[in-house]
Amino acid sequence: MPAEIPVYQDVVKAHDRIRGYVHRTPVLTSISLNEMFDASFFFKCENLQKVGAFKFRGASNAILSLSDEEKSRGVGTHSSGNHAAALCLAAKMQGIKSYIVMPRNAPEIKKIAVESYGGIISFCEPTLEAREKGMDEVVARTGCTFVPSYDHPHIVCGQGTAAKELIEDVGELDIVIGPVGGGGLISGTSISTKGMLPGARVIAVEPAGADDAYRSFKSGKIVPSVNPNTIADGLLTSLGELNFRVIMKHVDEIVTVSEESIIEAMRLLWERMKIVVEPSGAVPLAGILEKKIETGGKRIGLILSGGNVDLARLPF
Amino acid sequence: MPAEIPVYQDVVKAHDRIRGYVHRTPVLTSISLNEMFDASFFFKCENLQKVGAFKFRGASNAILSLSDEEKSRGVGTHSSGNHAAALCLAAKMQGIKSYIVMPRNAPEIKKIAVESYGGIISFCEPTLEAREKGMDEVVARTGCTFVPSYDHPHIVCGQGTAAKELIEDVGELDIVIGPVGGGGLISGTSISTKGMLPGARVIAVEPAGADDAYRSFKSGKIVPSVNPNTIADGLLTSLGELNFRVIMKHVDEIVTVSEESIIEAMRLLWERMKIVVEPSGAVPLAGILEKKIETGGKRIGLILSGGNVDLARLPF
Repeated sequence: MPAEIPVYQDVVKAHDRIRGYVHRTPVLTSISLNEMFDASFFFKCENLQKVGAFKFRGASNAILSLSDEEKSRGVGTHSSGNHAAALCLAAKMQGIKSYIVMPRNAPEIKKIAVESYGGIISFCEPTLEAREKGMDEVVARTGCTFVPSYDHPHIVCGQGTAAKELIEDVGELDIVIGPVGGGGLISGTSISTKGMLPGARVIAVEPAGADDAYRSFKSGKIVPSVNPNTIADGLLTSLGELNFRVIMKHVDEIVTVSEESIIEAMRLLWERMKIVVEPSGAVPLAGILEKKIETGGKRIGLILSGGNVDLARLPF
Repeated sequence: MPAEIPVYQDVVKAHDRIRGYVHRTPVLTSISLNEMFDASFFFKCENLQKVGAFKFRGASNAILSLSDEEKSRGVGTHSSGNHAAALCLAAKMQGIKSYIVMPRNAPEIKKIAVESYGGIISFCEPTLEAREKGMDEVVARTGCTFVPSYDHPHIVCGQGTAAKELIEDVGELDIVIGPVGGGGLISGTSISTKGMLPGARVIAVEPAGADDAYRSFKSGKIVPSVNPNTIADGLLTSLGELNFRVIMKHVDEIVTVSEESIIEAMRLLWERMKIVVEPSGAVPLAGILEKKIETGGKRIGLILSGGNVDLARLPF
């Protein structure tokens, strides 16, 4: 029997656990974007979170939920993205070890990021199977606790603290929008939103080139992500099992957007808001640009999930 | 006899006047930058201010200090930069007219910005003389009030509200650093800092390619800016008379930085802080990079003055 899905009170507990360690990120507004779409937008800037992404919330909550004995053996994950960097920094801040299994062909910049946060890297072949096998070996050798990147209640509740802060700061909202990849952020966002503002709609936005969550939502069962193709490299993965169940319960709608809209949204955020947002983080605004989300007179919260981009390889 | 220089209480009054109209911009921190320089940095993000620059503070204070009769005739300035955009938006928010005299060869993007905020543009030849003459004509024709971009107590006190908010938010600081061009921002910053934290040092940073403030400070009289050459296009102007007197009274030191350091600082801010900062706004951090400002164990506030850059023409 599957575990029960977390409730808003679990997000409250997660927030109490992590608030001394995470940034309470600012909520920014833009007159020009509001005028452009006849709406009041509130951008929750998780690009300004530690390690440049909301992932630091879930990783911190997972680590702070461990027993002292578990902490003494460290934590690990197989990831080459924001979750790995987040886990390493959260571990370093608690004075514990972190082990990262990473494909040999991961970009140099990701290796450097993990090492700069004190992560101990094991390289593997670039397949999911090799990553999981490598992780099993590290767990067997070190006794560390494997911390998944989205499919776990601690991760979901940690990520949900971003929407909780957003709503605490701005009050009533008609719609809350987030991107969806594995589903960690949007599932946590939906629990917080429905817990605090039962009348608000929660909308997930996904690149059309990686629309497994959209298809899962429509069909009522998890459709794996096969050969996803999008610039939004944080949204390539399949939905987690727990995340899917939360989404089916709390998310009102999933819409998909084109690559062109993602790049246009990213550029608008940089130009108008003066913030660096990665493609995945621009996906919610892309849903607005494509007019797939009603804006007229509405108060709309958007979670800007991250800001980790290679400045030498901008799409504009 | 020259007017008395403004005191901290004047900044307090300015803040009361404008606080309902300006963003209280966030103060951001970065673990990685702190570790890099063994300091605690507090970045006051005026790049996230309305119109993307601190200039909105001074312009708002100037307009809100007008009588109703003056307001009815509007405001004007000759500028093609952030001050013009700031004045237009501040005027628009009060429902009054704004007149901008702008050189014919001003970049298209600046014209569009001014027009989007409702500014009424008159074009002139690209000389200071033609700009001043054009402004005189507009004032004679419309009866509008000329609002200078830095050499005025209302402007100085408005700009000083950024440092006031910074110090209110973070408390004790050892050093407060800002860029210096015409001197509006640094003079206001120094009044607030010395008023709130008498023991803190105020350091101005200036591009070596536009070092008139540095030379003025050393020689004790205003040295005009002649053929300045720097990517920091907000810092090309000569010091204002009032600004110079405030600087001589309250600023402890002026240091100069190279173009390479400005670009490196700008890139660091984008990469580590995930914010878009224009070259002028990166100048204070460039002073840190060049080790011209002592950092060891210090609490240091930096004013990031603006974020208006052309994304199609980045220097990195």
